[in-house]
Amino acid sequence: MTGFGFDLQHTDGAARCGVFTTPHGEVRTPAFMPVGTLATVKSLDPEDVRATGTQMILSNAYHLHLRPGDELVRELGGLHRFMGWDGPILTDSGGFQVFSLATLRTVDEDGVEFRSHIDGSSRRFTPELVMRIERNLGADVIMQFDHVIPGQSDAAAARDASERSIRWLHRCLSAFTAIEPPHGIPQALFPIVQGGIHEELRREAASRIAEIHDWPGFGIGGLSVGEAKPDMYRILDAVNAALPRERPRYLMGVGFPEDLVEGVARGVDLFDCVAPTRMGRNGAAFTADGRINIKRAEFRTDRRPLDEECGCAACTRFSRAYIRHLFVADEMLGMRLLSLHNVHFLVALMRAAREAVQAGRFGAWSGHWLARYHSRTGTDA
Amino acid sequence: MTGFGFDLQHTDGAARCGVFTTPHGEVRTPAFMPVGTLATVKSLDPEDVRATGTQMILSNAYHLHLRPGDELVRELGGLHRFMGWDGPILTDSGGFQVFSLATLRTVDEDGVEFRSHIDGSSRRFTPELVMRIERNLGADVIMQFDHVIPGQSDAAAARDASERSIRWLHRCLSAFTAIEPPHGIPQALFPIVQGGIHEELRREAASRIAEIHDWPGFGIGGLSVGEAKPDMYRILDAVNAALPRERPRYLMGVGFPEDLVEGVARGVDLFDCVAPTRMGRNGAAFTADGRINIKRAEFRTDRRPLDEECGCAACTRFSRAYIRHLFVADEMLGMRLLSLHNVHFLVALMRAAREAVQAGRFGAWSGHWLARYHSRTGTDA
Repeated sequence: MTGFGFDLQHTDGAARCGVFTTPHGEVRTPAFMPVGTLATVKSLDPEDVRATGTQMILSNAYHLHLRPGDELVRELGGLHRFMGWDGPILTDSGGFQVFSLATLRTVDEDGVEFRSHIDGSSRRFTPELVMRIERNLGADVIMQFDHVIPGQSDAAAARDASERSIRWLHRCLSAFTAIEPPHGIPQALFPIVQGGIHEELRREAASRIAEIHDWPGFGIGGLSVGEAKPDMYRILDAVNAALPRERPRYLMGVGFPEDLVEGVARGVDLFDCVAPTRMGRNGAAFTADGRINIKRAEFRTDRRPLDEECGCAACTRFSRAYIRHLFVADEMLGMRLLSLHNVHFLVALMRAAREAVQAGRFGAWSGHWLARYHSRTGTDA
Repeated sequence: MTGFGFDLQHTDGAARCGVFTTPHGEVRTPAFMPVGTLATVKSLDPEDVRATGTQMILSNAYHLHLRPGDELVRELGGLHRFMGWDGPILTDSGGFQVFSLATLRTVDEDGVEFRSHIDGSSRRFTPELVMRIERNLGADVIMQFDHVIPGQSDAAAARDASERSIRWLHRCLSAFTAIEPPHGIPQALFPIVQGGIHEELRREAASRIAEIHDWPGFGIGGLSVGEAKPDMYRILDAVNAALPRERPRYLMGVGFPEDLVEGVARGVDLFDCVAPTRMGRNGAAFTADGRINIKRAEFRTDRRPLDEECGCAACTRFSRAYIRHLFVADEMLGMRLLSLHNVHFLVALMRAAREAVQAGRFGAWSGHWLARYHSRTGTDA
């Protein structure tokens, strides 16, 4: 684990704060990672991302393998240099994309055969190939290749996928160990705990995975994929209780502001989601009082910033009226400003959660925060 | 002319350099103004625009009248505050847009009746209404409402439009004088010299306009609208010789790098054009060795910046290979980086021209610059 470490600094109930160290810098947790699917956080520049307070970003092995190709990224110096982001990066393995984007997929013990969502070309991902791809990309943290299933799958299907994911984890670890990092900079491999909404399967997966190796961190996958919120919270409680205390836990693909607060309350340290940028491109903005849709007529003459308490580069310079105008006129700057604001909002939210844990008042802080966020009459975005 | 002035500092042949003073700051000329049609320079943030070295920007009365409405912009504090740009702004009067974008237009002595290009609604622009619109928007420099005709129009049509534009100029001046600037900040009204490609008409228009009033500057309209380049150069020579020496001359809607150099050689001080941002959105980049189209396969593995001599925020951080990837993957950052680079390129070009005039070596500099720019075998963008 050269170059990696996790210093768990404070706990408050199940909530935690710490510092995750990587070869490209430290990440103070809990932390939200915006998603740069194709080596760019959509509509933002690395300087915009830095200005939001973002410490670490995520990119996708599946997407970068298809375009521009992981070999090319390696040739051009790796993902950090390619995309101009010198902070920590994590790559998702493609497990989720293969099951959500690709078509005609067939899973066997060796891997997954699928058709590219870009050109329909036939592809096969195996744990070994995915490790090669993620080594080529050169992110700090790389995720194992896993078998992802729908959120409502029954126990038999969930067990099958979870056990396959554990068998694939062994193969990932062997391949990861056998391949040198292309630019000599160490990478960390995170396993992914699967098991659907079945607590017993999750607990079993967590302890079996933890026995395989002294992992530098753990992914929690297969949540926020269609299951009910109480199911997600119940599973988080179970998984986090079963994982080693001294390692960071990363809840994959989550999420919305309220999900982040609920996740921290259950011991999660890292989050990622496309929500802030995707919603931003659609005109939705997070505010402390809930979500708003900036395209609504009510904002036509509104001189206020998106969120009066926000210090982001959108809120300190532009009115709701101006940003609404940009959306009505279909100007790109509108999408950029809302994406920037939404990412800043989630990053700042996790900073506030961290401070609450440090101060031993996470329960009160989160209760107050959630009540205010949900107070807005009706969600309009 | 409170708040405005022009200090002509050096000349070198017909080429000039000076300082144009406005209530929102100084503009060292010759200068290129990027276009923020709808109160945003497309795909750029005001901070990006500032980082390109841009001193002054242009916005469009026609577009802003339709969306979001000039009354709303006034209510929200004027264009500078609305769009977050605290430097000088110039608004075009809509003369060009009425003739190029609107449909079913009919010109009479009173004004122009047309249908909006957005929703087909029936509208009428008169010199008086346009002055009201431009006062509401609150730019530093506002242009008269003029009658624009195609570049190849015969002398009779050109004379008719030019004389109407001069009659409208009288009405613009009366209306401009009668309306207080809404936020108490002085504005300057520029007339527009028309007359097509007919030197005699142009000379006559220039001297008749100069007799009406001591204008703080002059627009040269109706060029780069389909006429041949030699015609444009010939007309520029004629107009600039006829205009008062001590006032800035603004060549409207021009242009490409080579046009700017040729314009400076003929006494032009200010330029604007959508080319750098429009071309940038289409994948074309200016370089000292000519234009390139970044989407071409040859750039797939190219580690070099767009232009090795450029100091812009795209060239100092990203490779051609990365920017090509962004275009192939349809990522907004690609359009932003090329727009930023192209604007920077034209701004830096005018700064170099200014230095050449100051040093008394404009002829040699421009000859060398044009030869190199045109040297690339074939234009591929």
